[in-house]
Amino acid sequence: MNILIAQSGGPTSVINMSLYGAVRKAFAEKQIKHIYGSVNGIEGVLNDRLILLEKKLVEIEKASNQPGSILGGSRYSLQEGDLEKIINKMETFNIKVFYYIGGNGSARTVKALHHCAKHQGKELRFIHIPKTIDNDLYGTDHTPGYPSAANFLSHAVQWIGTDMESMKTYGQIEIIEAMGGNTGWLASASAIAKSSEEQYPQLVYLPEEKKSLSQILKEVESSYQKYGKLMMIIPDHFFIQGILSEASANTTRAGYNGGVAYQLAAQIINNLGYKTKITIPGTLYRSAYSFTSKQDLKEARILGETAVEQAMKGISGVMMCIKRLSNKPYDVEIITKDLENIAGKEKAFPKEFWDKEKHMPTNKYKTYLLPLLEYSFLKPLTLLEK
Amino acid sequence: MNILIAQSGGPTSVINMSLYGAVRKAFAEKQIKHIYGSVNGIEGVLNDRLILLEKKLVEIEKASNQPGSILGGSRYSLQEGDLEKIINKMETFNIKVFYYIGGNGSARTVKALHHCAKHQGKELRFIHIPKTIDNDLYGTDHTPGYPSAANFLSHAVQWIGTDMESMKTYGQIEIIEAMGGNTGWLASASAIAKSSEEQYPQLVYLPEEKKSLSQILKEVESSYQKYGKLMMIIPDHFFIQGILSEASANTTRAGYNGGVAYQLAAQIINNLGYKTKITIPGTLYRSAYSFTSKQDLKEARILGETAVEQAMKGISGVMMCIKRLSNKPYDVEIITKDLENIAGKEKAFPKEFWDKEKHMPTNKYKTYLLPLLEYSFLKPLTLLEK
Repeated sequence: MNILIAQSGGPTSVINMSLYGAVRKAFAEKQIKHIYGSVNGIEGVLNDRLILLEKKLVEIEKASNQPGSILGGSRYSLQEGDLEKIINKMETFNIKVFYYIGGNGSARTVKALHHCAKHQGKELRFIHIPKTIDNDLYGTDHTPGYPSAANFLSHAVQWIGTDMESMKTYGQIEIIEAMGGNTGWLASASAIAKSSEEQYPQLVYLPEEKKSLSQILKEVESSYQKYGKLMMIIPDHFFIQGILSEASANTTRAGYNGGVAYQLAAQIINNLGYKTKITIPGTLYRSAYSFTSKQDLKEARILGETAVEQAMKGISGVMMCIKRLSNKPYDVEIITKDLENIAGKEKAFPKEFWDKEKHMPTNKYKTYLLPLLEYSFLKPLTLLEK
Repeated sequence: MNILIAQSGGPTSVINMSLYGAVRKAFAEKQIKHIYGSVNGIEGVLNDRLILLEKKLVEIEKASNQPGSILGGSRYSLQEGDLEKIINKMETFNIKVFYYIGGNGSARTVKALHHCAKHQGKELRFIHIPKTIDNDLYGTDHTPGYPSAANFLSHAVQWIGTDMESMKTYGQIEIIEAMGGNTGWLASASAIAKSSEEQYPQLVYLPEEKKSLSQILKEVESSYQKYGKLMMIIPDHFFIQGILSEASANTTRAGYNGGVAYQLAAQIINNLGYKTKITIPGTLYRSAYSFTSKQDLKEARILGETAVEQAMKGISGVMMCIKRLSNKPYDVEIITKDLENIAGKEKAFPKEFWDKEKHMPTNKYKTYLLPLLEYSFLKPLTLLEK
């Protein structure tokens, strides 16, 4: 039989490692003859852009620990008739399994393809291999790509903190814009190296919260008064009643990040009169090569490998999931979950991970996240004093 | 005798190394009894915040390779009578030499103090130790801090490039905002890893250029058509006739970065209809610890050490300068230059380093910059094809 693999959505730092794991495993499987790859997700399937990956092993291995999607990402939405076309194409190429590496969008696609093939009475298999820096998929303890993005942010916050501490007497507010879709998983990672209340950041907001501008300005004012400086983390999908409906709409419509941080900075400057700077790391969250977590790379690879094994046993319509067995020592097992009830659902940042009063994640969240990072944090800068 | 050291302006990744070099050298000098440090530049001198640095050797050594200013930065402007007050304070503490680590502002302060003391017939010495990520000081081949900031940007551009390449079929424009004050030294570093025209970034703008909005939109349109994607580097002090006077004014007035990138993105979206994202690394340019260049650290230290040696020989009113002797192998010597004609003057990005037609720095600039970086660049991502 032949198999097909594709990548979907925006890239991560480890998405190529899942591809590499799957391709290596498939290459060693006697039952598998050809390993097809599709360029730009299901678009490549629909537009005849399939390539033989067994001929590209060297390139895939070289890219395996590098950010970006070596097969190209896709944001294509399924049109009527597409499912049937994809299934026909698979039959033409004698492809029995389709592995789709992606987030919530591709989970829905895999589920739909599985149903369609089943309905037609066809013996095809469809497996979803998760990836997203947003960490917003149900069924898995966490998603490959998230640990590396969290690792980058937690370091960036510490670096920017040394700068703010140096310029403390010139009191300023720094707004750092976090990615993470509609959930606060990534924004929360900004606080992972904090060991005292004064340390940066002092205010973290989640997209799950709805806030009015006056509420936020009050919180900014009181934090600033308390600490004499203020680093705040604002998700790019943060809705602020009043001012930010338009900016948020822009964000979605035109792929326009920066709206929330910029507009909030303008409001702080105009209403409170504080110097306010913005930092927008943008796609650095998913491409900051030097911050790829080793644990993340390892798990991305194992998920790819296990996906091939599982499909060889005949299963279909599932997502490859990480199940955490223990925090200390960190231990996981890879399981499969039926996509039926989880595909496409966003997993919000859990209530027990969030301290609403302090605008900070809880220690429970730290226990969850720390094993996934490269914990090489900077000693916070302490100015010399008399 | 006693001496005094202080740090000024925004921090860099290596400003503490210059301090460390000077303090170590002074500690070993028999003529020197006490090494005073001032907290927050000349403000600390004016407000009695002097500390004995010989008691802080361990802390200074620990911070020596870390970003931030361990003595605190300063953006204080000299008021009438301040020069005399500083000189009085130096006499009170029997301080014979004042070393000021900083950019153009502190160069002017050092020159003014030197003149004032000379005018009063006092045997005091004043030495300027350069630091700025802007690289805009006359007299020195380059300034400590610049290589590390350039190193960070050149890597960030490559990372963001892998993301753009992965999403190429979803054509987008990415605007990266560069620091660098009124000169294009830092923005130009974004192109240092480029080996072909298509590689990222495709358009670099310098603050030395004045452009109208319609000119820029024309250049964006034609680059986008040519490459099917576009990464452009825009300095945060970039003046665009028409739209950006207000944003630029804000930048200066309120310490408000992000204005230029945000406003230009809005113009591109509204006028050309392309998806446009912005990345604002902000103070990461001067704090991205993992990108501190070893050459930069080394030179920052030597400048601090040599400054102590020179002052012991009796010189005053000078800047410590790097003079390049050769590119291959890279070799420099440390010299002093009289601040008389160079203090406070901005060194624009040289014409021979800039290709106006291509919106790119020339190979001459690459020859200049490369020896200062950690040249560990990523292989650009190439999507797999049939």
